[in-house]
Amino acid sequence: MRMSRLFGRTLREPPSEAQTPGHQLMLRAAIARPLAAGLYTWLPLGFRVAKKVEQIIREEMDRIGCQEMEMPVLTPAEVWKTTGRWDLLEPITFRTKDHNGREFMVSYTHEEVVHLHAINEILSYRQLPAMVYHFQSKGRDETRPRAGLLRTREFVMKDAYSFDMDQAGLERSYAAQHGAYVRIFRRMSLDAISVESDTGAMGGDVAHEFQVLTEAGEDRLAICSRGDYSANLEKAARKIDDASEPFPKAARSEIATPGTTTIEALQASLKLPASAFLKTLLVKDRDGKPVAVVLPGDRNLNEAKLRKRLGMSDVQFAGDADFARAGGVAGFVGPVGLGAPVLVDTAVVAGRGYVAGANKKDTHLKDVALGRDFTAERADRRVDLHDVIEGDACPTCGAPLAVKRGVEVGNIFAYGTYYSEKMNATYLAEDGTRKLFVGGSYGIGVGRSVQTIIETSHDDKGIIWPFAVAPYEVHVVGLPMNDETVHAAADALVATLEEKGVQVLYDDRDESAGVKFADADLIGIPFRVTVSRRSLQSKSVELKPRASSEAELVPHDIAADRLVDIVRRAREAAAR
Amino acid sequence: MRMSRLFGRTLREPPSEAQTPGHQLMLRAAIARPLAAGLYTWLPLGFRVAKKVEQIIREEMDRIGCQEMEMPVLTPAEVWKTTGRWDLLEPITFRTKDHNGREFMVSYTHEEVVHLHAINEILSYRQLPAMVYHFQSKGRDETRPRAGLLRTREFVMKDAYSFDMDQAGLERSYAAQHGAYVRIFRRMSLDAISVESDTGAMGGDVAHEFQVLTEAGEDRLAICSRGDYSANLEKAARKIDDASEPFPKAARSEIATPGTTTIEALQASLKLPASAFLKTLLVKDRDGKPVAVVLPGDRNLNEAKLRKRLGMSDVQFAGDADFARAGGVAGFVGPVGLGAPVLVDTAVVAGRGYVAGANKKDTHLKDVALGRDFTAERADRRVDLHDVIEGDACPTCGAPLAVKRGVEVGNIFAYGTYYSEKMNATYLAEDGTRKLFVGGSYGIGVGRSVQTIIETSHDDKGIIWPFAVAPYEVHVVGLPMNDETVHAAADALVATLEEKGVQVLYDDRDESAGVKFADADLIGIPFRVTVSRRSLQSKSVELKPRASSEAELVPHDIAADRLVDIVRRAREAAAR
Repeated sequence: MRMSRLFGRTLREPPSEAQTPGHQLMLRAAIARPLAAGLYTWLPLGFRVAKKVEQIIREEMDRIGCQEMEMPVLTPAEVWKTTGRWDLLEPITFRTKDHNGREFMVSYTHEEVVHLHAINEILSYRQLPAMVYHFQSKGRDETRPRAGLLRTREFVMKDAYSFDMDQAGLERSYAAQHGAYVRIFRRMSLDAISVESDTGAMGGDVAHEFQVLTEAGEDRLAICSRGDYSANLEKAARKIDDASEPFPKAARSEIATPGTTTIEALQASLKLPASAFLKTLLVKDRDGKPVAVVLPGDRNLNEAKLRKRLGMSDVQFAGDADFARAGGVAGFVGPVGLGAPVLVDTAVVAGRGYVAGANKKDTHLKDVALGRDFTAERADRRVDLHDVIEGDACPTCGAPLAVKRGVEVGNIFAYGTYYSEKMNATYLAEDGTRKLFVGGSYGIGVGRSVQTIIETSHDDKGIIWPFAVAPYEVHVVGLPMNDETVHAAADALVATLEEKGVQVLYDDRDESAGVKFADADLIGIPFRVTVSRRSLQSKSVELKPRASSEAELVPHDIAADRLVDIVRRAREAAAR
Repeated sequence: MRMSRLFGRTLREPPSEAQTPGHQLMLRAAIARPLAAGLYTWLPLGFRVAKKVEQIIREEMDRIGCQEMEMPVLTPAEVWKTTGRWDLLEPITFRTKDHNGREFMVSYTHEEVVHLHAINEILSYRQLPAMVYHFQSKGRDETRPRAGLLRTREFVMKDAYSFDMDQAGLERSYAAQHGAYVRIFRRMSLDAISVESDTGAMGGDVAHEFQVLTEAGEDRLAICSRGDYSANLEKAARKIDDASEPFPKAARSEIATPGTTTIEALQASLKLPASAFLKTLLVKDRDGKPVAVVLPGDRNLNEAKLRKRLGMSDVQFAGDADFARAGGVAGFVGPVGLGAPVLVDTAVVAGRGYVAGANKKDTHLKDVALGRDFTAERADRRVDLHDVIEGDACPTCGAPLAVKRGVEVGNIFAYGTYYSEKMNATYLAEDGTRKLFVGGSYGIGVGRSVQTIIETSHDDKGIIWPFAVAPYEVHVVGLPMNDETVHAAADALVATLEEKGVQVLYDDRDESAGVKFADADLIGIPFRVTVSRRSLQSKSVELKPRASSEAELVPHDIAADRLVDIVRRAREAAAR
């Protein structure tokens, strides 16, 4: 490919909207361009990277017997309504109507659709297990598209679906996908770790995310310093000393706290640590009734955990009417005598005396103890509703947890019969009865993977593409192109390389050495070869790997053979 | 691929909704499945065909220097509004809104979007010409989806776009695309002819369609019997003797025709041929005002030609108010004294005396002549608004035209500055001024091509895939699979073939010979190899090309080598 013809120009400066290093470099190197907020076009260079990423995913899906197919972008409302997700997904999806008024969703994911197909195509247990996948555009009406390709409103996802006879089969399929994901990300040179995750809108209990640690990420992860536990903060647990304490000697008693409505203010006025207080939040349950959530003052509510506990897609905080209904007073709510069920967080120590709101203006109670002064919703069972923080104890080994940022490049869900029950999706079992499919789904975002590679593989000059996903393998720079000897030698080298199947980006432009080298560093092709007047005088060309600062001179007459050999070896290494 | 594991089952009988042979076979052979009216999923077998078709297109686009990229499915309303197509395309497109109320179109085509990118990426004439393409899902809200993949509401189209400095450049790009299309369809074994076509919603004047002649098609084409002219009937012309006749001797006069409102009824009552009458139709123009269209009684209106003449996307026939306004009487409308502009079709002979409506109930006029009794809208210039019919004279050579049915598998448009003018899409020309891009667009529907291959390559048993697009290359049938010797021999043959890179579909099911052979014929893989108890007794396997009725025995020990050789040669032939 001649750069003089390349559709997509490099930019000297990052556009002002670029939020992360990868976002800046992706735009500067002409990988993709925004068309509107969260909508991107792959320019030719980026398209080649995306296709190589796709091909790696395809090969690993094929390797585990997963069959490629393709389901549509537009999916009829009826199929979503069978599982209740037509309404559930409304806030985050795009919908359309045909001219007869029939409704469609721009597909968000394809669990329902693939179950419909399974019902038609899989008649008997003899056809199980079955795994299928496709690459298809997904629409998600994100309120806040973010950081280029990291969070967009349209993106191509590889989504795979497994169908098994039973839980044991699902576990095998899940393990096969997990193994494929490990290989996929390794082949892309993404250092992805598998962490336990919340199942969100997918249903079921078991799910993992593949997270790449980088400050560009928006997910927060708890990671054990000994390496035996990692989870998204939406789901992360910690080891908690479950011993209860003896009740305080004193009975609870009122203290005057005029105008003191926050933990910080209480700390200051009562000279007590945050952990001495109970924080009581009033939210609504699925029926709109008030529910109280009680946490120690030094812990933050984790909304994902609470959403999951309530079975809701959003946490809705209580309004004035709810406070009135529950008998609480805003700023002075506490669990004692409150007219609402109380969810008590696991971080609240049973028996210990806390300072809590008195449900009375300008008043708190001290010596308030769980088990004596108030009880949790269900037989004093506490629920994990708080954020894990740096330094908490690993739930597996007790070693300190670190909290890091990551980008979720893949996720896998073992939802079991979540969809097949609702859709009555069954197969004829060996014993002659009809049984429900037991399933899982497995996603990888292509664009997000591409940008995450950039986030984790660049220097201050530009991208450093891992060989396996580089848009081209060799970048030939002719300097200057108006020198006929240089021009002819560069043309000939490129022709020989291309004839031997090497993917070459050829900078044939009439630009200065400075501009050409800066673009080569920015675009980040693994091997740069400079054919210059000076190098030809010493019967050589200059070879420089992008990842190295060292260049070497290679005799001109063996340059093509040498490059073909380097590329062959790099391909072999990348395929492993 | 083992058929016991294949996702997608063959059907004994065609579903009742199947409208054409290709539609029936596509469903029966598990190529695709409908999800809703006009929405299809590619099952794994069909997906492989679609990808091979895509790859052929890709190779030929790359060969002419067209660069692959990818634009989104969701496209913002604003960009369509710059050219007026947001409103124009409303009847045939799907729209959606995000939660902030911003509107998007599920992309119908990408002329506007690609011009936006060209404005950003192409700064100067040095970067021209440029051609880009992508494969992307398109949404079209067809009122009548039809015949499976022949007319769907979502489909993947390869759309390419050229940008040139001037008309001469556009002509070169257009010719390069035309040449690529010829190679593409030949490589798919589609006998596509290039015909002149209407430009429809694309703008511009020059356009060609690639049509495959088959009764399954819904387009009608005029084709010269000597081969020097072909055009879609929406655009087709014919040679017309332009000589005018002397005016009739008699002045026009009224004749009573009570209740006689159709040409057929007039023919019967007046004992005259259809060609003796004038047919006058009242329609609305873009401003909603009445316009009359006058044709000879033996010619039908071609709505596409009229739409183009009026610059409208639909022909709107006049209502009662329009008749009143123009002074016409429904059933007795005629051009004489009508209060509306009159478009006179080219088939109306100037000077000749016709029978026409008198704009008066139960009355016609005879001896009505163009040029004496009425005049055409603009200085008696007639316009071509009629359908060409079988036997009309070729506009090039005068030989008889045939009218045939075809499927449009590709189309190319040279729209010039149609978009760049409206979008102010310019580049810096060599003379320092800013000039408009001169462009064209070039589409191929992937799914429609796949089904058209089936429409034109099948027998009564099933599909006969051309080698280049067959889902697999060799179909190995083991018979019976519960015979251990057969099972082992078939497994070994498949393993050897796959190791050597041959694409094998392996029927390893416990089914009868009848079922397996019927499925092999239905699915239509080019080479069937049967490993049976009987063939092994004679130390052979049976080889049968799908397209031939002759089978031959091949010695078992050389079968794999022989097949590898056959496949290699078939691949070479298919790549030419």
